[in-house]
Amino acid sequence: MTMGNAMYVLVAGQWRQSRATDFFQAENPATGEFLPPRFPISPREEALEALRAGAEAAEALRGVDSETIARFLETFAARIEERAESLVEAAHNETALPKTPRLKDVELPRTTDQLRQAARVARDGSWQRPVRHEARKIYSIYAPLGGPVIVMGPNNFPFAYNSAAGGDFAAAIVARNPIIAKANSSHPFTTQMFADLAFAASQACGLPPATIQLLYRTSRDLGFEMVGHPLVGATAFTGSRDAGLQLKAAADRAGKPIYLEMSSINPVVLLEGALRERGEAIAAEFCASCTAGVGQFCTSPGLVILPAGELGDRFVEAARQKLEAAPPGVLLGGGVRERLVHAVAKLRENGAEILCGGGALPGPAAQFANTLLTVSAAGFLRHPEELQTEAFGPVSLLVRCDGTDEIAKVLRHIAGNLTGTIYSSAAGADDAAYATLEPQLRARVGRLVNDKMPTGVAVSPAMNHGGPFPATGHPGFTAVGLPASVQRFTALQCYDNVPEHRLPRELRAEKN
Amino acid sequence: MTMGNAMYVLVAGQWRQSRATDFFQAENPATGEFLPPRFPISPREEALEALRAGAEAAEALRGVDSETIARFLETFAARIEERAESLVEAAHNETALPKTPRLKDVELPRTTDQLRQAARVARDGSWQRPVRHEARKIYSIYAPLGGPVIVMGPNNFPFAYNSAAGGDFAAAIVARNPIIAKANSSHPFTTQMFADLAFAASQACGLPPATIQLLYRTSRDLGFEMVGHPLVGATAFTGSRDAGLQLKAAADRAGKPIYLEMSSINPVVLLEGALRERGEAIAAEFCASCTAGVGQFCTSPGLVILPAGELGDRFVEAARQKLEAAPPGVLLGGGVRERLVHAVAKLRENGAEILCGGGALPGPAAQFANTLLTVSAAGFLRHPEELQTEAFGPVSLLVRCDGTDEIAKVLRHIAGNLTGTIYSSAAGADDAAYATLEPQLRARVGRLVNDKMPTGVAVSPAMNHGGPFPATGHPGFTAVGLPASVQRFTALQCYDNVPEHRLPRELRAEKN
Repeated sequence: MTMGNAMYVLVAGQWRQSRATDFFQAENPATGEFLPPRFPISPREEALEALRAGAEAAEALRGVDSETIARFLETFAARIEERAESLVEAAHNETALPKTPRLKDVELPRTTDQLRQAARVARDGSWQRPVRHEARKIYSIYAPLGGPVIVMGPNNFPFAYNSAAGGDFAAAIVARNPIIAKANSSHPFTTQMFADLAFAASQACGLPPATIQLLYRTSRDLGFEMVGHPLVGATAFTGSRDAGLQLKAAADRAGKPIYLEMSSINPVVLLEGALRERGEAIAAEFCASCTAGVGQFCTSPGLVILPAGELGDRFVEAARQKLEAAPPGVLLGGGVRERLVHAVAKLRENGAEILCGGGALPGPAAQFANTLLTVSAAGFLRHPEELQTEAFGPVSLLVRCDGTDEIAKVLRHIAGNLTGTIYSSAAGADDAAYATLEPQLRARVGRLVNDKMPTGVAVSPAMNHGGPFPATGHPGFTAVGLPASVQRFTALQCYDNVPEHRLPRELRAEKN
Repeated sequence: MTMGNAMYVLVAGQWRQSRATDFFQAENPATGEFLPPRFPISPREEALEALRAGAEAAEALRGVDSETIARFLETFAARIEERAESLVEAAHNETALPKTPRLKDVELPRTTDQLRQAARVARDGSWQRPVRHEARKIYSIYAPLGGPVIVMGPNNFPFAYNSAAGGDFAAAIVARNPIIAKANSSHPFTTQMFADLAFAASQACGLPPATIQLLYRTSRDLGFEMVGHPLVGATAFTGSRDAGLQLKAAADRAGKPIYLEMSSINPVVLLEGALRERGEAIAAEFCASCTAGVGQFCTSPGLVILPAGELGDRFVEAARQKLEAAPPGVLLGGGVRERLVHAVAKLRENGAEILCGGGALPGPAAQFANTLLTVSAAGFLRHPEELQTEAFGPVSLLVRCDGTDEIAKVLRHIAGNLTGTIYSSAAGADDAAYATLEPQLRARVGRLVNDKMPTGVAVSPAMNHGGPFPATGHPGFTAVGLPASVQRFTALQCYDNVPEHRLPRELRAEKN
């Protein structure tokens, strides 16, 4: 079997009929209707079989050379390109994301580029960081984890973060770990297509049969059991904070590594000089960023900190007009819309006032009005935690501050985020304020941005798509940016007094 | 105040009278008597004050240049050497460890060497790993955590792992994090001396006042609160599994990094060829390693897997004779002896039989007979978890196996350990067995040793003093070996479109 039968899971090197008795269907967010295929919710025995097969594959993969891993990643990338049209069609049906430019011209090339960057890192071996201490005969190297990596991708990037093709997948494979992909329930068919292409490429390159496995969904409890299972190597999760925290607790209890990207409202600070110089242009940038991907980006600017007073008022009015004028997009599903309604209600209950939008739009498509809310700094400081509720969609909260001191006070209450942005005067008028505020923001974010919006995450060796808790689970790791992202899926292994011929090839003085 | 008043804690840049109402005393293990000074158990307000002062120091330390950090580490090392005699005297009284060679000639030089290695790493900046992506104007670097690091050192290395002078201390300082040292309750006076020397050195080098702080003890609940406190950067803990797991749960809940070294029985596999060639010599090495530090080393060989049959019998008999003949040392305290009694009882209840020793020795000193236990592979496989109970002292369990397959079966039930060792024939007679067994052992340990005992942890850039759970909390980090050990106390920070003059010095294209 290659494709097309939703009832088949990929376990232990075979597409096979699931033993599921429960099923789910994905939704077409543009119509609100369920798509026809029913996908299995795997029972416990099926998941455990995948873990056992993954553990065997982990042992076999340890001995596979890096050239083979690199060729697999390149072969997979090429096969994705061959099937680009079908993938775009599938993802569009399941997510309502525009076929072009978004899926075809942006996200798909980004995904294959990421796989090819991963191939280069597999080949250059930089992630292994071999260290030899000749005098002591002690050698060390970063190695695979010794068990499969469970990848749970998010709903918002069906290609670039896909459980069976995205950044976590690529990083885990570079470090020679097998993958158990758990499809995001919003795009199971797209994920099946990727898993099938990856599996075929892995077979063509002679990788162990269970290198790539796919389950679509499990019960919550079974998910907790899997991430803490003795046979698992680690888990990579991208999704909501609630689900992430529960998975984290389960993995932590078992002492199993878990890397999470959970939530981020990406504070943007607009300093006076910047607004004076180019307030209108910044409002346009903000509106474009806030509505990009219908606001469903991890790095969407959900909190804007800006001056009270006339300069700020002018920005607010410009932003409001632009957001009202921007056509509302289709969200990733009815569930996303429902959570947005709750999030906006929570912001309002805690003192935020609506400037525009604020509610779901009628009709079969999952839509929500582009929404701007506002609160004073004093109001924000009364409920700082509640007012940092993530509203995953085209929604942003403005916090109006009276001077640098008040901005600093607000920043001191900001939780961990993926990004933080400061817009300042190009002529230097904000330099003193920048110097005061930067340390506060810097300590709270993974990526500090200047003078552009935080959306747009380049796959760069210098990227950090991570940040302090609760944005992620640990401030030292990134989910994007090779080779650093590989680090998450490695174990440090030391060889003490072990003769040369027994060392792994990459650690020998003479490699051959 | 410099020294000598046990009632003073070091908080916010001052030695000051503790506000404690509860106190504890350390024990002289050689006499079983409490040492006179009463040390404070700090109340909540005192601990929170240390956290607040530490958070302020973290902000100030971020801007301190690496040369100043290096000079501090070197100054501290020099001052330790000046006070070597007093430190040795203090540690001997509190731990009963021999003044010479152990404390004076081995552990003290190791400690100052480690501080000087740390100074070199601070100077060369290798831990920061700056990455510049010029075309995209994205730059990243590893930076301090932004909050103080709590160091909780173990009882068994009063110098090299001391909360205020050891490896965790040095690694956290290299990354420019302030320290809150929590003294091990078995050697509070030694720790006070180190904290005082470190504090004076930090003042001499112009570091922020709260860079070095010292508390001796808190209640358990306050300890849990501290490791999960929003102001804390991370925690480094070395000690028992029970305490470690509870601290881990508290830190994990709050999303705070915690690095733990909890327990390890360090399996040693003796293959037939090695025993045939040099069984008697290996027995001598084993006995020396098992009794080194009175068996209170993290890497003590607590589990030996060896052949059933005559070759094995001869080793066992030789080892038993040597252990019986070796004079019993003094343990680190009555508590250690008590836990040993319980551990040995648990091993016996689960099928292990005593070959020699097995009980506490009479008298005021804390002593336990050198102890050898044995069990068949089948017996081990009936209670694999219980028979891996760590007996922290001069105790080892032999597992007798019939052939390579049975050794492999036993290895598959071994939990995560710091080290794993294989002795094999120098002539190649064990090569097939080695090839079969190595992957099983490799996956379960941080450091794989050949043909020597696992005790002796070199401070080498290639060292890994870490390992899979439950030996530690994460398989990717080491507590010993610079610069890798520094990695634990860093956050990845990315700068996107930030102009050159606003980048941290170490990240600029032109450093000056």
